Amino acid sequence: MKAARYYDRGDIRIEDIAEPEVEPGTVGIDVAFCGICGTDLHEYLDGPIFVPAHGHPHPISGEDAPVTLGHEMSGVVYAVGEGVSDLSVGDHVVVEPYIIRDDVDTSENNPAYHLSPDMNFIGLAGRGGGLAEKIVVERRWVHPIGSDIPLDQAALIEPLSVGYHAYKRSGGKAGDFALITGAGPIGLLTAAVLKAEGITVAISEPSELRRDKALETGVADHVFDPRETDVVAKVKELTDGVGPDIGFECTSVQPALDTLFDAIKPTGVIVVVSIWGKPGSLDMQKLVLKEVDLRGTIGYVNSHPDTIALVQSGKVDLAPFITDKIALDDLIGKGFDTLINRNETAVKILVDPKA
Amino acid sequence: MKAARYYDRGDIRIEDIAEPEVEPGTVGIDVAFCGICGTDLHEYLDGPIFVPAHGHPHPISGEDAPVTLGHEMSGVVYAVGEGVSDLSVGDHVVVEPYIIRDDVDTSENNPAYHLSPDMNFIGLAGRGGGLAEKIVVERRWVHPIGSDIPLDQAALIEPLSVGYHAYKRSGGKAGDFALITGAGPIGLLTAAVLKAEGITVAISEPSELRRDKALETGVADHVFDPRETDVVAKVKELTDGVGPDIGFECTSVQPALDTLFDAIKPTGVIVVVSIWGKPGSLDMQKLVLKEVDLRGTIGYVNSHPDTIALVQSGKVDLAPFITDKIALDDLIGKGFDTLINRNETAVKILVDPKA
Repeated sequence: MKAARYYDRGDIRIEDIAEPEVEPGTVGIDVAFCGICGTDLHEYLDGPIFVPAHGHPHPISGEDAPVTLGHEMSGVVYAVGEGVSDLSVGDHVVVEPYIIRDDVDTSENNPAYHLSPDMNFIGLAGRGGGLAEKIVVERRWVHPIGSDIPLDQAALIEPLSVGYHAYKRSGGKAGDFALITGAGPIGLLTAAVLKAEGITVAISEPSELRRDKALETGVADHVFDPRETDVVAKVKELTDGVGPDIGFECTSVQPALDTLFDAIKPTGVIVVVSIWGKPGSLDMQKLVLKEVDLRGTIGYVNSHPDTIALVQSGKVDLAPFITDKIALDDLIGKGFDTLINRNETAVKILVDPKA
Repeated sequence: MKAARYYDRGDIRIEDIAEPEVEPGTVGIDVAFCGICGTDLHEYLDGPIFVPAHGHPHPISGEDAPVTLGHEMSGVVYAVGEGVSDLSVGDHVVVEPYIIRDDVDTSENNPAYHLSPDMNFIGLAGRGGGLAEKIVVERRWVHPIGSDIPLDQAALIEPLSVGYHAYKRSGGKAGDFALITGAGPIGLLTAAVLKAEGITVAISEPSELRRDKALETGVADHVFDPRETDVVAKVKELTDGVGPDIGFECTSVQPALDTLFDAIKPTGVIVVVSIWGKPGSLDMQKLVLKEVDLRGTIGYVNSHPDTIALVQSGKVDLAPFITDKIALDDLIGKGFDTLINRNETAVKILVDPKA
């Protein structure tokens, strides 16, 4: 079967590899669509980061580069392994792409299985990937989505789960006011969750095209250009002088974090969703004198069922975030290169591995 | 009556001033003891900070320097104003020394009255102070302590409330493991609260004398010298490799914050209790990949009744933290100068305004 294999920085190859075997306890999935994630781009431009470099196998998967890429996938079950009785051939599914040690409790009783030692991701550190025609995944990480969610939109459930978990980390509730810095894919999908949960959303984003997207998709009530507008003054005006209840840092740049600290209300919560390459500077006086909570968030944990329900209910419409669909052979030319060079208009590019 | 009056940086005078008037809704208190706080020292060395400088009256109190100092006080009621029916002459009391706008809800229904606009402190921004023979305080801010708590120990209830509120901010619970950086007065009193609540306490503190104090008073289970010991390795060893559940930054120095981030368990909470004079550097990767909560805390809010109950129950013994008692005339010579020059042995120096 065809698969996109990551060898090293700048070296991703579309190759023909053997189909995976369906073992007991696993599910065979015909991949329908797989999104390209910012993490994939980082691996391509600056990696290997999450990918275990050649000669350095991952301690859980035992695999090293080359590995199959892709972790934002939807598909249709084509086979179930021995012992799997609650999924059937033909079911539409998505994957929660974790690689986690066998001795970790990954049930819903453990609110931190995603933070367990050596945690990594399917499609980065081995165990196949969504940028291939087929994948075999342990039953635990396969989530049925019913038949109402189109399979292309379903490929966005993984990044939407990131936004959902960030929302849960914020403690936000209906009626709250949120300020998001950055309207990239994760900023937009976090906004989509917040809107679905009845929260007013303001986004600060320098790119006009991205601000337009936030308005067109209906996920933002207010958008501001931080180069032209005093964002802190604006959101305070919109909140009777108090400031936003919750903030989401989705840019990894210092001025965005500073804006959130200046804007947030006393006792407010700021969630850092982005991955920062260098240390941030933190005005401790603002943290202390406003009793702000600064909270990290990574991935998702027990988030997929609720996220799927949100899409099934129609409260989140994922269609407008799909900006292109391409064939696997065009992964670099029409996928990575577009996201790297023209990433103001592209939100989510989906790959159809069979096209 | 005699009072310590703050005029300006380096200029505190013991003067004879008029006694305050007991107005409707207020309580007249004969001050028994008043502690010297680190904040008082900062005002003396680097101020005015909280104190409104001469010619710049505080927007709520309307007062400017000179003001009477002292906000850690205990005393005996000598008169009650019209409308005060639930306190009597002779009652032992402490003061929650807030200056807050009249239009703010300061009932227990408001968990953030201490973060309201222009909040300041009695004994810093006007309305009298504990470093005087008498003080008159609005009924709301006077807390009865019963007759079992000695009045000298009662003067420590205010800083103990700071530790109590920091503990509440952490979400800590019995059975947890806490790492505190710094065994100054607030580090020690925070430790005292944590121990009383059934939490195991480790303290990282470079001063041997302060480490000894933490052990002698029984508030620490483990003490480490961070210059000689790998504190992160030690606390991980003590927590089965997981790390502390909660951390308390009580030093305002960068290496202490770094130690807490390296040590804290995934999903752990770090509370910043100290006042930092400059920005901190924050490794966002640790915040994000361990999903740490970094929380600011300032003062106390609805904390005095619980803190008083903790002392009444005998779970916190404040006696060992009183390292000297001095007369008001000795405030600078035996008080401030001792704390500035020999602050490794001194924890809390109490002033008896009538001595």
